[in-house]
Amino acid sequence: MKVLVIGASGRLGAAAAEALADRHEVLEASRSGELTVDLTDAGSVENLLQQVGKLDAVVACTGAVPFKPLADLSEEDFKAGFMDKVLGQVNLVRLATPYLNDGGSFTLTTGVLAREPISTGVVASLANGALESFVMATAAELPRGLRINAVSPSVLEEATNYHDYFPGFTKVPAEAVGQAYLKSVEGIQTGRVFSLG
Amino acid sequence: MKVLVIGASGRLGAAAAEALADRHEVLEASRSGELTVDLTDAGSVENLLQQVGKLDAVVACTGAVPFKPLADLSEEDFKAGFMDKVLGQVNLVRLATPYLNDGGSFTLTTGVLAREPISTGVVASLANGALESFVMATAAELPRGLRINAVSPSVLEEATNYHDYFPGFTKVPAEAVGQAYLKSVEGIQTGRVFSLG
Repeated sequence: MKVLVIGASGRLGAAAAEALADRHEVLEASRSGELTVDLTDAGSVENLLQQVGKLDAVVACTGAVPFKPLADLSEEDFKAGFMDKVLGQVNLVRLATPYLNDGGSFTLTTGVLAREPISTGVVASLANGALESFVMATAAELPRGLRINAVSPSVLEEATNYHDYFPGFTKVPAEAVGQAYLKSVEGIQTGRVFSLG
Repeated sequence: MKVLVIGASGRLGAAAAEALADRHEVLEASRSGELTVDLTDAGSVENLLQQVGKLDAVVACTGAVPFKPLADLSEEDFKAGFMDKVLGQVNLVRLATPYLNDGGSFTLTTGVLAREPISTGVVASLANGALESFVMATAAELPRGLRINAVSPSVLEEATNYHDYFPGFTKVPAEAVGQAYLKSVEGIQTGRVFSLG
């Protein structure tokens, strides 16, 4: 299959690309590099899609949200998290649907904060919860046998600088998360959230 | 208790107000009427809060989202659903927190589409999923013993004009939904989603 991995320069994107590389043609896009894209800019997404042409799968490992104590979160913080992590991935699905071959798939990235809280994590929780319900609902309306799932990992074992923010949370090896992306791309599931940790 | 019900002119708001009226002082606010408020306008929310003063509970039964087939949904549709249903209730929590007495509560309104899809319901699903994870995360960071829950009903038995959009879904009597608001206001639960149907 021809698979586009967006956010390939990040830890999750790299893990997805590595898991997929054995059996698939993987195109890696990031904010900088050979294939560049900014998911918050529809024109940039269209540009990328025109460059790469028809695809069998799109994997998105992107999305930034503000982390602040609840009392410090402004209206702008909630909007920023929505516009980047949620609307970025939603627009990718909207715009890339015509580029997917019949039976192709989307795999989005959410995270453990959809289902468990951490201090300063309210916007991340909101964004992840939004995307997980979006995936459930969108799966039921996609045309041509297209599928969509989300990979929703706990903090990565390798992301040691974040471990203090996730006390006692299961730490997930990047390689295991990569396998979840592979399962979504090669499997038959749709509308599912693959939770790790 | 002194309870502010927002969206009191709607079916859910009326059910909440009725369930609460026996034992509480209920202040009813809507887009029009004696106490008016527009949750998409922070200034309007502040005005209302200054009028009503200190509260023991805030119940929000509000939020409009576009209903369209997936293929017709634009970026603007997703933004509109977020700004109205999600950010409207989020901003209410942000702005009303200082007006709640210690141990007070927020009760937000989501809906069955967070967990089940219907045709044309993608934005509603996204908005409800966002709010349910927001409630889970916010509960853990609220100060002074404040609580927050969501009431997440299926389509109302009384809303017969919507029944065709929810084939086979359990129809919930408004009175039962009113009891869920009462449970959230008088109970000790926090961070919970009360699903009906």
